Amino acid sequence: MLNETHDPSLSSWVDSANAAGTDFPVQNLPHAVFRRRGTGEAFRGGVAIGDEVLDMAAAQGVFEGAAAEAAARSGDATLNGLMALGPAAWSPLRHALSRALRRGASQAPRLRECIVPQAEVEYAVPADIGDFTDFFSSFHHMVNAGRVFQPDAPPLPNFRWLPIAYHGRASTIEVSGASFHRPHGQRRSPGDAAPSFGPTRCLDYEMELAAYVGPGNRRGEPIGIADAEQHLFGLCLLNDWSARDVQGWEAMPLGPFLAKNFLSTVSPWIVTLEALAPFRCALPRSADDPPTLPYLRAGAAQADAGFDVHIEVWLQTPRAGSEARRLSRSSPRHAYWSLAQMVTHHTVNGCTLRPGDLLGTGTQSGPGEGEQGCLLELTRGGRQPLHWPDGEQRTYLEDGDTVVLRGWCEHPGHARIGFGECRGSVLPARPGA
Amino acid sequence: MLNETHDPSLSSWVDSANAAGTDFPVQNLPHAVFRRRGTGEAFRGGVAIGDEVLDMAAAQGVFEGAAAEAAARSGDATLNGLMALGPAAWSPLRHALSRALRRGASQAPRLRECIVPQAEVEYAVPADIGDFTDFFSSFHHMVNAGRVFQPDAPPLPNFRWLPIAYHGRASTIEVSGASFHRPHGQRRSPGDAAPSFGPTRCLDYEMELAAYVGPGNRRGEPIGIADAEQHLFGLCLLNDWSARDVQGWEAMPLGPFLAKNFLSTVSPWIVTLEALAPFRCALPRSADDPPTLPYLRAGAAQADAGFDVHIEVWLQTPRAGSEARRLSRSSPRHAYWSLAQMVTHHTVNGCTLRPGDLLGTGTQSGPGEGEQGCLLELTRGGRQPLHWPDGEQRTYLEDGDTVVLRGWCEHPGHARIGFGECRGSVLPARPGA
Repeated sequence: MLNETHDPSLSSWVDSANAAGTDFPVQNLPHAVFRRRGTGEAFRGGVAIGDEVLDMAAAQGVFEGAAAEAAARSGDATLNGLMALGPAAWSPLRHALSRALRRGASQAPRLRECIVPQAEVEYAVPADIGDFTDFFSSFHHMVNAGRVFQPDAPPLPNFRWLPIAYHGRASTIEVSGASFHRPHGQRRSPGDAAPSFGPTRCLDYEMELAAYVGPGNRRGEPIGIADAEQHLFGLCLLNDWSARDVQGWEAMPLGPFLAKNFLSTVSPWIVTLEALAPFRCALPRSADDPPTLPYLRAGAAQADAGFDVHIEVWLQTPRAGSEARRLSRSSPRHAYWSLAQMVTHHTVNGCTLRPGDLLGTGTQSGPGEGEQGCLLELTRGGRQPLHWPDGEQRTYLEDGDTVVLRGWCEHPGHARIGFGECRGSVLPARPGA
Repeated sequence: MLNETHDPSLSSWVDSANAAGTDFPVQNLPHAVFRRRGTGEAFRGGVAIGDEVLDMAAAQGVFEGAAAEAAARSGDATLNGLMALGPAAWSPLRHALSRALRRGASQAPRLRECIVPQAEVEYAVPADIGDFTDFFSSFHHMVNAGRVFQPDAPPLPNFRWLPIAYHGRASTIEVSGASFHRPHGQRRSPGDAAPSFGPTRCLDYEMELAAYVGPGNRRGEPIGIADAEQHLFGLCLLNDWSARDVQGWEAMPLGPFLAKNFLSTVSPWIVTLEALAPFRCALPRSADDPPTLPYLRAGAAQADAGFDVHIEVWLQTPRAGSEARRLSRSSPRHAYWSLAQMVTHHTVNGCTLRPGDLLGTGTQSGPGEGEQGCLLELTRGGRQPLHWPDGEQRTYLEDGDTVVLRGWCEHPGHARIGFGECRGSVLPARPGA
């Protein structure tokens, strides 16, 4: 449902928010946790506007009435308190921020003192993430990855009946910018008689979105499909780094473990579901899909259960430098399962979600060439290297590589809503580990 | 390594701690978090002695010197702070507690004021559990469960190379006494053309131990096998409730999810590794086992890498009442992988452990009849019901059933070290869920 905050004609008294191509116009207003880089300052919550961060801790007292509580919590060192408040508090805050940051707002002089350039800040993971769940919602990822991991097996019989998911690691979720040493592990390549131990040879990225849970539920009390989105605060970019040779050896029968839990990287900014309202879409279904079980049926709401977010993955190599090479581009509009369906399925057995929990969508791949969301798919399990005109090639990631995810929404007649970036770099394996 | 605290001739000025068959003699001294039942009191840490709890928050100031910091943290509302201190703090606390609770201790008059009967308290989960990992360390469970889930498949090729594990749900770990409604889910039985939705028909328990992590590690810095146990605070009982029909349908390819995350129950008392020192043992290996990869080799320490804890599972039914029926009995002395190997494997890729994280051992089954650690194994996947002389039978758990785990260590020449109990009850499925 669109309202005055989505009006594409709105502009801000922060000039950079009015620039063409900005990720953060006054129609976006995403949340993060930040401090001035290189200082011992406390981390606190902020809202992006153009090239700036509005320091919500410094802005205490500016926002009153229905927005006051959410405004206070949006300045906290973690946003769990804000997330717990729910849409009835988030929406008044969005309206208040929109009005206060518009050109001509009376609050401008006071808020101008609360502005910090994004170029001068560093970010933290914006919530205390209690549990991290990663879903498997992309049909195309399922088909492509299945061809590599289980070439002789039929497509997964359960994929179109339920949003498959597994629990990931909360302790190793870090914010954009984290680098990591190539992880060690047990690997067995096809044809090897026995596994070997050493640094992974098949280091991959995964192009995902992730949702932060808003209000939670009590144990034993499922969240129905009609209410599911009320329990989601907003979305970020997620790179679920993966070691494919470790994964192939360890993951039977309990799923991926060390292949994934060495690091997952999130973008700092959380774009609220309300900001994404203009970019909703239906998700694809075909005539041979099985019926959706009643508890996962959204009725008329299914027609806009998806979000069309253009996501891209770029590779920076030591050789090519900042002349980045694009690896993947797709959108969750190709996904089979919606965020609402993920929430409802996750809780249908009474499982508890808590504010700040993170739900990954799984790798988002599309049907076309170049729309594969990871190197496993792009290189057909490493058998078809990617080549660039200057002679460089990749099957999997190499030491020194930097992977950057970017995401944005653009539809005619609406302001561009961006996610910023999610970046990480591969360091050589630690000797002797 | 045994010391004065293990001396079986020690007795306590708390009489019930000297009774034959007590779980909590002065040689045990496990930790929990408690308050007087039915009060609004704050939860705080305590130490079990006989039928009593020593209120460590009330005992502040009694313990000085090397034990002071650990004694203070052992009275906290969660024991993460105590766990973070490590063995160099835990062992002095154990010595100080042992001396202060012995018969004739000068502190007795002061500590007598800090004693609360266990019969009058309720417990909380003793730590803020950041991440819950469940391992798959029992060879016999692997063989037995494999026959049910994958009757035509060869034994898992990776089981004897690495301690298989997956991430569980932290938000639904509760302390002994929790009841729960039979969970709903998608189920497909063999032969069914399509899955159906409804309450699970195959509700099971899993007999496990679990270890709380002590000091953590930094991301990217593995914990070597020689240091691994320094990162473990102590052990409790764990019942990893499971819905087998849900598990069989959902778990390919990412592992169990809704089949397990509706509830996991822990016993309130954490028995420290130091208390268990007299009950160490070697773990079984056979001539056809593959070589242990170097990073998992404990050298001479492998000879006592295991713990011989007798664990039993008892069923209370509405029909039989408190005349409980024993379902399972076994010991982790039959396990293939040690706790130290689990810690080292978990971190070999740089994954971060944090104080208070929980590591489940997976179902502990032994080689003999009656040593199967869950109903899936005992009933051969539900095909062979258990029968009792009064005519009652079970394949899986029924509404109204209560499952009780108990554990203790008993070797000649040593004091009995008990774990208390871990209890939970099955309520009927919620209508309309």
